Amino acid sequence: MIIILRKGATKEQISHIHDKIKSIGLKPHVSVGVDRTVIGAVGDESLINEEQLGTLDYVDEVVATSKSYKLVSREFKSQNTVVSVGDAKIGGKQLSVTAGPCAVESKDQILQTAQAVKKSGALILRGGAFKPRTSPHDFQGLGEEGLKYLADAASSVRLPCTTEVMDTRDVALVSEYADILQIGARNMQNYPLLKEVGKSDKPVLLKRGMSADVHEFLLAAEHIMNEGNRNIILCERGIRTFTRFSRNTLDLNAIPFIKQESHLPIIVDPSHGSGKRLFVHPLSKAAIACGADGLLVEVHPNPEEALSDAEQTISTKEFSALMKELGPVAQSVGRSV
Amino acid sequence: MIIILRKGATKEQISHIHDKIKSIGLKPHVSVGVDRTVIGAVGDESLINEEQLGTLDYVDEVVATSKSYKLVSREFKSQNTVVSVGDAKIGGKQLSVTAGPCAVESKDQILQTAQAVKKSGALILRGGAFKPRTSPHDFQGLGEEGLKYLADAASSVRLPCTTEVMDTRDVALVSEYADILQIGARNMQNYPLLKEVGKSDKPVLLKRGMSADVHEFLLAAEHIMNEGNRNIILCERGIRTFTRFSRNTLDLNAIPFIKQESHLPIIVDPSHGSGKRLFVHPLSKAAIACGADGLLVEVHPNPEEALSDAEQTISTKEFSALMKELGPVAQSVGRSV
Amino acid sequence: MIIILRKGATKEQISHIHDKIKSIGLKPHVSVGVDRTVIGAVGDESLINEEQLGTLDYVDEVVATSKSYKLVSREFKSQNTVVSVGDAKIGGKQLSVTAGPCAVESKDQILQTAQAVKKSGALILRGGAFKPRTSPHDFQGLGEEGLKYLADAASSVRLPCTTEVMDTRDVALVSEYADILQIGARNMQNYPLLKEVGKSDKPVLLKRGMSADVHEFLLAAEHIMNEGNRNIILCERGIRTFTRFSRNTLDLNAIPFIKQESHLPIIVDPSHGSGKRLFVHPLSKAAIACGADGLLVEVHPNPEEALSDAEQTISTKEFSALMKELGPVAQSVGRSV
Amino acid sequence: MIIILRKGATKEQISHIHDKIKSIGLKPHVSVGVDRTVIGAVGDESLINEEQLGTLDYVDEVVATSKSYKLVSREFKSQNTVVSVGDAKIGGKQLSVTAGPCAVESKDQILQTAQAVKKSGALILRGGAFKPRTSPHDFQGLGEEGLKYLADAASSVRLPCTTEVMDTRDVALVSEYADILQIGARNMQNYPLLKEVGKSDKPVLLKRGMSADVHEFLLAAEHIMNEGNRNIILCERGIRTFTRFSRNTLDLNAIPFIKQESHLPIIVDPSHGSGKRLFVHPLSKAAIACGADGLLVEVHPNPEEALSDAEQTISTKEFSALMKELGPVAQSVGRSV
Repeated sequence: MIIILRKGATKEQISHIHDKIKSIGLKPHVSVGVDRTVIGAVGDESLINEEQLGTLDYVDEVVATSKSYKLVSREFKSQNTVVSVGDAKIGGKQLSVTAGPCAVESKDQILQTAQAVKKSGALILRGGAFKPRTSPHDFQGLGEEGLKYLADAASSVRLPCTTEVMDTRDVALVSEYADILQIGARNMQNYPLLKEVGKSDKPVLLKRGMSADVHEFLLAAEHIMNEGNRNIILCERGIRTFTRFSRNTLDLNAIPFIKQESHLPIIVDPSHGSGKRLFVHPLSKAAIACGADGLLVEVHPNPEEALSDAEQTISTKEFSALMKELGPVAQSVGRSV
Repeated sequence: MIIILRKGATKEQISHIHDKIKSIGLKPHVSVGVDRTVIGAVGDESLINEEQLGTLDYVDEVVATSKSYKLVSREFKSQNTVVSVGDAKIGGKQLSVTAGPCAVESKDQILQTAQAVKKSGALILRGGAFKPRTSPHDFQGLGEEGLKYLADAASSVRLPCTTEVMDTRDVALVSEYADILQIGARNMQNYPLLKEVGKSDKPVLLKRGMSADVHEFLLAAEHIMNEGNRNIILCERGIRTFTRFSRNTLDLNAIPFIKQESHLPIIVDPSHGSGKRLFVHPLSKAAIACGADGLLVEVHPNPEEALSDAEQTISTKEFSALMKELGPVAQSVGRSV
Repeated sequence: MIIILRKGATKEQISHIHDKIKSIGLKPHVSVGVDRTVIGAVGDESLINEEQLGTLDYVDEVVATSKSYKLVSREFKSQNTVVSVGDAKIGGKQLSVTAGPCAVESKDQILQTAQAVKKSGALILRGGAFKPRTSPHDFQGLGEEGLKYLADAASSVRLPCTTEVMDTRDVALVSEYADILQIGARNMQNYPLLKEVGKSDKPVLLKRGMSADVHEFLLAAEHIMNEGNRNIILCERGIRTFTRFSRNTLDLNAIPFIKQESHLPIIVDPSHGSGKRLFVHPLSKAAIACGADGLLVEVHPNPEEALSDAEQTISTKEFSALMKELGPVAQSVGRSV
Repeated sequence: MIIILRKGATKEQISHIHDKIKSIGLKPHVSVGVDRTVIGAVGDESLINEEQLGTLDYVDEVVATSKSYKLVSREFKSQNTVVSVGDAKIGGKQLSVTAGPCAVESKDQILQTAQAVKKSGALILRGGAFKPRTSPHDFQGLGEEGLKYLADAASSVRLPCTTEVMDTRDVALVSEYADILQIGARNMQNYPLLKEVGKSDKPVLLKRGMSADVHEFLLAAEHIMNEGNRNIILCERGIRTFTRFSRNTLDLNAIPFIKQESHLPIIVDPSHGSGKRLFVHPLSKAAIACGADGLLVEVHPNPEEALSDAEQTISTKEFSALMKELGPVAQSVGRSV
């Protein structure tokens, strides 16, 4: 850790920090510069409370030299983590495409979708039963009934399935039906929920929060891994920015950066990443070209009738076309669909 | 609701929307403009799924003409809601200042803080027992032990207290100790939790999410009120922006806007709203001058030793000075401290 | 234009707006809804000052139904504009890659770069002579001397060249040396400069401002086209967001959206779009996969010695590798390099 | 300057940086930590190109320990700068309120406004003659004719006046009429323009760019001061964020921070800072309470007829009420109006 003092810091002030670092068990290095004094603290940084040093009037900045994430970091594990679910090996050479409706609406709707996306090459089926809706007056999902329809549809086409869990009290129930537990963007920093799925033996699909920076995203995964669950799939799904022409801004910069910093696989959600159907095809290709390990796409037999996220949902027919277009792109970067 | 079609929309397409609106039970009004056709739908807008219309290729934009929030809106209730807790009447003429440490660290620490802030004029004591921490390796709070210390300290100085609840499973437990249930920024869209506190008979302090726009903030309150709990205190606590000189950007524009749109009281958290002690005094005054109903301030007997949020915490001595400075500002806008 | 009134608007207020619209020469349509009244104004919207209506207390929202950009819109011209410079046909099937250093530093440096990027397949040479630097104490570019070095290097390898112009007084001078006039992100809303290059017969490369939404970007192009210059190349170069792991967030959503809204070609700058060398290869591929018409890449013989933007600059050797990797990606989406 | 290396950096790599620092003329300090090696460079940091070090694969981060702004910093000049224009002493105890229309529209309009705002206590008259408009099809200002009307109106009520200059070629012309040269938000990083007004003997009112962080804002002022002009008034006018309920987000955090970092006076523009008339009164009070040295307010005899920025403009009558309300707030923080 490095502590940069303000111009004019006194000897007493320098001593105070020097002694504080020493008392914690780290080695202080004082370096008196032309403009200001800099103090280094060598040793186990996790022993220092960075913010406490920041309270001192004569401290200008405190810079950490260690990463705050450990278990999820590539420094901890240099080889890529590959999460296996059904035929999908997320993080392997073959891309994993997860597809399905935003919400399970009926037995027929999810079955029809399952059959179509399976035929087009999806490896995992998605569908929401518990829906986080901005307004309490909108459709909230079918709950356990939806879970049943989803699991039945998935099983009938021999695909694993994923669905969102929002409440710590529902983790056990959702785990009965789902092969992957999904944590939505709004819950990325719901720590009790992260801990609960961290104790589960099901893989977790963790979506990036709307305004989470990458280190916070990785630290959310750290909360899960810290409880013992190492099967985590990250998902970039767009961040909130000033732009108004798209609902969110897909942040593809995050793909190469996370690949550098972490061993975990990362997929991209082009539906939420933009908020409009227009963008789904081009952004899916961009995500693959840029190194993503897969996609999470909202697909509905008839988007015009979809009960939620209709605007960003593509039809099963459009999904079939998309999968065909993805093949050559995947190949161009040494992957396959 | 108004549906703006793209240039070149055909008669069949116009008919399709016309008939769809009619079938839902609203009255369609088609207006053929110079550039494009606009269709109005008069009636109960909540019957229309706006996004479904957005899926149609020939629809350029769908504009709602009703507010999506109902119960929390000033249209629903024109008079200000005043929430009474202890001697505080939040939303009344006298400002309500809530003060205390980010985290309860020990029996002594919270008691000492309670005595100091009471003496300086705070009307409510705050202190965290369950802490949402970005890293799982940081101090997570004392849990139930912390709740006890907080309740004891509050009771010994005859102040009501508030503390954060993060898990639906903890609402009952926290309610045993706290007078106000606090929902943190990270949980503003944790809908199961909002519903759970909505069923409680304790007032709820709802903090704005880091990237929540005002209508989403009001809709989060709507989730609570929809369950029957009408005692909601909103709290502006800074939003996430591109700036790096402050941790968050306090959005005081929200105060007059929420006052116009909603009957609920709103207070300001200048500690999180900026992230640094330097800002707490000036932003507290700005908040009051701008019409806030109170403040939520992080105060610690010795910030340099605070286990969390040290950098934005002021000392009990600084808090005492702040309260003295606030008096004239409150008076200048017709309020009192 | 549609004017949505607040609940409770009176007959007099409705009449006032009705008459105002009529007096301007448009046809008013009043539609009294359940909740609120909506007034449509049919005719030439450009005659109405939208903001004036917004000043009225009883107006809740004013919604435009026409696009504010005309000349640059696809409604105005449905076929793609292709800008021809040297062998490059920007907007055609073959992708146009522009490459070169952030700043021209010496005769040798730009010549060496020109030879290398030409050999690797770049179609246009870039290099800054007038540099917009955040600090006045940093290297400001070589000025006219730099223009000469750039033009000589470009001519010796038979490539056209592009360079930034920052001052209306320099447009004539820069036009003597450059084949394309570049408007930097900081000057996207420098309207006198836009008008000046709009009068030029040289093509203009217009970079998106750091916090410009897409309609503002298109309106900046409209300023140029309004003066008569129709050869405009748009460039997405990353926007400013809350993220700190990358300097900017490349907004690839803009590519398909601009392709829908406008006939102008659009290229991507992966160097500024991220701010770090790590991202240049993956983002270049993503841009191509997503439909961009070309790239603008910062290349230097030895980035460690580059006088500006060193961190986001790739070496001539890395550029050669990049171009080889781009071939298959371009092909996968029906383009060529 | 501090250079943090990646884990696993080799001896050769450490030597390379060590030697590079030495060759530049600074003293290197190598500190081998548990996790990673940190190298300090003591001496004149301006000699090092921070970005060049960032190009090295084995460098994780480069941290500056000196401020990049010099002349505008409080380290350079500890006492507050007070800019005197007419009766206004901007930065002194008395607040300076500048008021007037967004655009000068006619001789009568500006004269009527001048008389009204003078009567209400404004110390400076504002009015735009050259208007930066997002669309080329909107009213662009009256140009020199507008300058004349403005100067005449100001002179007839004995107030100094300020107006925006957008083009380097217009600085001399505008200086003939205006007492203060205003640089708009869109031109905050138009460096040729900053340099040109830096050579002028007129005070400069510099508005913060829509997406400029505070250090960039101060560096823009540094560009002006570097040319010799020390009479600079900073103006916070709102930043661009994700919120949609207000046009901009007024960033009052900037006031105390700039007061700490710089000796320059800073005023607040509550009109652009929010974009709606609703906010102007409360935000003006907040700005004063928080330590601003004055206000810049858009005022028009009849906002409903204003040709630009109508929605955020208050009437001369509302301005008179505002000034009366500001008195007690100013007094509450030891200032006067």
